[in-house]
Amino acid sequence: MSEVPQPPHRRRAHTSTRDLARYAGLFAERTTVMRSSAMRDLMAITARAEVISLAGGLPDTSTFPAQSFAAQMTRIAQESVAEALQYGPTEGFEETKDCILEVMAAEGMLPDPEDVIVTTGGQQAIDLVCKTLVDRGDVVICEAPTYPGAVPVFCSYQADVIQIECDDDGMRVEQLEILLGELCREGRRPKFVYTVPTFQNPAGVTMSLERRQRLVELARAHEMLVVEDNPYGLLRYGGEPLPSLYQLDGGDFVIYLGTFSKILSPGIRLGWAVAPPPVMEKIIIGKQAVDLCTSTLTQYFVREYFAEGRWRRYVEDLVEIYRSRRDVMLAALEEHFPAEATWTEPQGGLFIWATLPEYIDTGDLLAKALRTDVAFVPGQAAYIDERGRNSMRLNFSGVDEDEIREGIRRIGRVIAEQVDLYGALTGDRPQAPAGGAEDTGGIGSRPNPATSMSDSPETDSVVLPFRRTGEGAA
Amino acid sequence: MSEVPQPPHRRRAHTSTRDLARYAGLFAERTTVMRSSAMRDLMAITARAEVISLAGGLPDTSTFPAQSFAAQMTRIAQESVAEALQYGPTEGFEETKDCILEVMAAEGMLPDPEDVIVTTGGQQAIDLVCKTLVDRGDVVICEAPTYPGAVPVFCSYQADVIQIECDDDGMRVEQLEILLGELCREGRRPKFVYTVPTFQNPAGVTMSLERRQRLVELARAHEMLVVEDNPYGLLRYGGEPLPSLYQLDGGDFVIYLGTFSKILSPGIRLGWAVAPPPVMEKIIIGKQAVDLCTSTLTQYFVREYFAEGRWRRYVEDLVEIYRSRRDVMLAALEEHFPAEATWTEPQGGLFIWATLPEYIDTGDLLAKALRTDVAFVPGQAAYIDERGRNSMRLNFSGVDEDEIREGIRRIGRVIAEQVDLYGALTGDRPQAPAGGAEDTGGIGSRPNPATSMSDSPETDSVVLPFRRTGEGAA
Repeated sequence: MSEVPQPPHRRRAHTSTRDLARYAGLFAERTTVMRSSAMRDLMAITARAEVISLAGGLPDTSTFPAQSFAAQMTRIAQESVAEALQYGPTEGFEETKDCILEVMAAEGMLPDPEDVIVTTGGQQAIDLVCKTLVDRGDVVICEAPTYPGAVPVFCSYQADVIQIECDDDGMRVEQLEILLGELCREGRRPKFVYTVPTFQNPAGVTMSLERRQRLVELARAHEMLVVEDNPYGLLRYGGEPLPSLYQLDGGDFVIYLGTFSKILSPGIRLGWAVAPPPVMEKIIIGKQAVDLCTSTLTQYFVREYFAEGRWRRYVEDLVEIYRSRRDVMLAALEEHFPAEATWTEPQGGLFIWATLPEYIDTGDLLAKALRTDVAFVPGQAAYIDERGRNSMRLNFSGVDEDEIREGIRRIGRVIAEQVDLYGALTGDRPQAPAGGAEDTGGIGSRPNPATSMSDSPETDSVVLPFRRTGEGAA
Repeated sequence: MSEVPQPPHRRRAHTSTRDLARYAGLFAERTTVMRSSAMRDLMAITARAEVISLAGGLPDTSTFPAQSFAAQMTRIAQESVAEALQYGPTEGFEETKDCILEVMAAEGMLPDPEDVIVTTGGQQAIDLVCKTLVDRGDVVICEAPTYPGAVPVFCSYQADVIQIECDDDGMRVEQLEILLGELCREGRRPKFVYTVPTFQNPAGVTMSLERRQRLVELARAHEMLVVEDNPYGLLRYGGEPLPSLYQLDGGDFVIYLGTFSKILSPGIRLGWAVAPPPVMEKIIIGKQAVDLCTSTLTQYFVREYFAEGRWRRYVEDLVEIYRSRRDVMLAALEEHFPAEATWTEPQGGLFIWATLPEYIDTGDLLAKALRTDVAFVPGQAAYIDERGRNSMRLNFSGVDEDEIREGIRRIGRVIAEQVDLYGALTGDRPQAPAGGAEDTGGIGSRPNPATSMSDSPETDSVVLPFRRTGEGAA
């Protein structure tokens, strides 16, 4: 890459047990509960060109016009190189906020620019919210399943994470209400509820209007914050838009998180948070410490890109591409997955959530799938506990239609082998669960009752439909 | 900026006491000790064009050739737009690591690329080290004064920060040794010593070879990590290079932090950390949670820039410019600062540390200086406690020579007013301290004994020359 001759690098010998012991006493306690992101670990494996990865949450950046990129960078070169290479304000440039407000306006929101901070991707926004709000042992509530990238953040702050089941209408807010009552009796105030209400990652489901309304009512009643993460709202392939939680609440108890990752580029690492002033003040102080400011260069790039006035057309193009890929994946699942499997039919976003017979562990399945050069995210990555073992997250935005068909075909073949093996071991081919064709409130169009909760009232008093982490509990 | 019509934004009314109370119970305990960075707060004020800011740690990005920027971005446009806009690996691209290894080789270091992680600026590297190592109440040792941007990080992890005095040869390692003995007797093991050994921020001093050797010996003997932050090593205007702590130690107990901010651009937010494998493993998990990965686009920019093979010539150009600015600032200080003032004469880096008579509070002085459109960083920002009140950090890299002369002239005038006022109030013009012309080991060529420690052995047993934070102590 460079013509300057380089000295040979010192290659380390394999780390010895002695080495590990040497540093062990120095690690912070949080490192014992910090976990690696399954998606991130998979990235290294799936970087090989021959692997069809349905694992990442990667948008398709291949359609971004090279001339447009070149034109924006040329304008920066001509007008503002020195500024684009310099430090910027911690909260981000006003011009970046203008772009953010344009995106939010497209979804019907009108925040005060003073309430907005530009972050190093949406991920940093989640981290800064936790830094501002979460002490060790504090209760954080999220969906079950939840965004796999949020789990490591909550763990790193040693939160007591409680997950509320989802069904096809998103988080089961009536169960949240039961939980809040219980916590209240215990004298514990949850710090926030984290939710991806629209085209959820990983389940692909969308929270109904009734539940949205009830959720913001609960937030207000309990003086509890709701963190609404909305990376996919503009990627809608069917149905009608619903108001965001931020809109319904007016921004008093809802912290809103957005990102340019899915409507433009994740490689620029630009996201944002919108929070009420007392919370924003703490978030800004937190950001000063973690990275001083967000990249000026990538903010200038976004500014120039939005100045072209074509960003919505680009998103519309993505919507066309992704809608078609979603349909291809749904058809491939119908063709290649066994009758016992269920999956969601998302109206937008990037993901389908598939649930297999209970005796299949998708972690083991992934190892086998990788041998046939295909990858997905095992469901357990979306849970803080042991749930999700027979589910998987499938991404349909990052690869083309042929690859989707071939990827699902390969996964289907590996599943079929597992099903046959189970049949050979038990002497019986497992049946589809009774009532499998009827919607009992689980996630997926052909719900698997084993992973969905009954709506019958007696369950409330017997066993609560959410589980808690043991780690980090106060 | 954009032609799309925008809706009017909701402007928030002033935040009420009620609002503050509403959220107060939700904030994490760390927010009570998190402090805003003085430099960052000043950035907003000094953004006004008429202000001469000697406050920031800004490199001069105005000499970066626009054609070079345009050429690199055009190559990305032609060859790799889709990749440059996509997510990347958490630890950074191999090609970025190649550039990092080239920079480190220029200072005589040869790390294993596996031990390197690309971070979102050098600031994130400090944060990730703390996330990996620091529990609430843990001892972190740093210099007095220390990098003002590190103080908020240590505070955000609720560390018990202990500062070791510097003199013209950097951190007084013999005092560190006394402290380590004391901590050992208390049964406390410090997590790490944070140091900027070369052209220190803010003092401009450089740690002597003997102290460097002793520091790495101490680290090994106490199985304690040393975090060597080296943003300025290549910006040398005089004297001979010294080996880095990383070189002396071999990388077993020294975590090395570097950045492209001062040799290329801070706006690209690219830094790095080099750590032994067991520590690096935790740092990578930490980075996954905080921002998934460093900007792909800015990494591609650096790759293309280094491929040109001219990065060292650019640094040499910067060295010429900065050397001259340093000399101009030193001459201006001689001309405009009072006889009682002392300051350092750095052989490199970006900063001069000036100390005024004790009765001058540089925080108050800054308020007055800003009214004459000039800014600096008050010394207290470099201390965890109340010290540094009569010192200031002056940056000579970010503004041109005329501005340096004018800026120092204005600060000198404000100081003179303070000196006169003091004289009028006390009826006496204060004298230069006795022995002020003789070097007694403080920082600065005309040391002020009030801020430097005596070397006499009895001080060791009476009062230790380092102070601790009350906050966060276990």
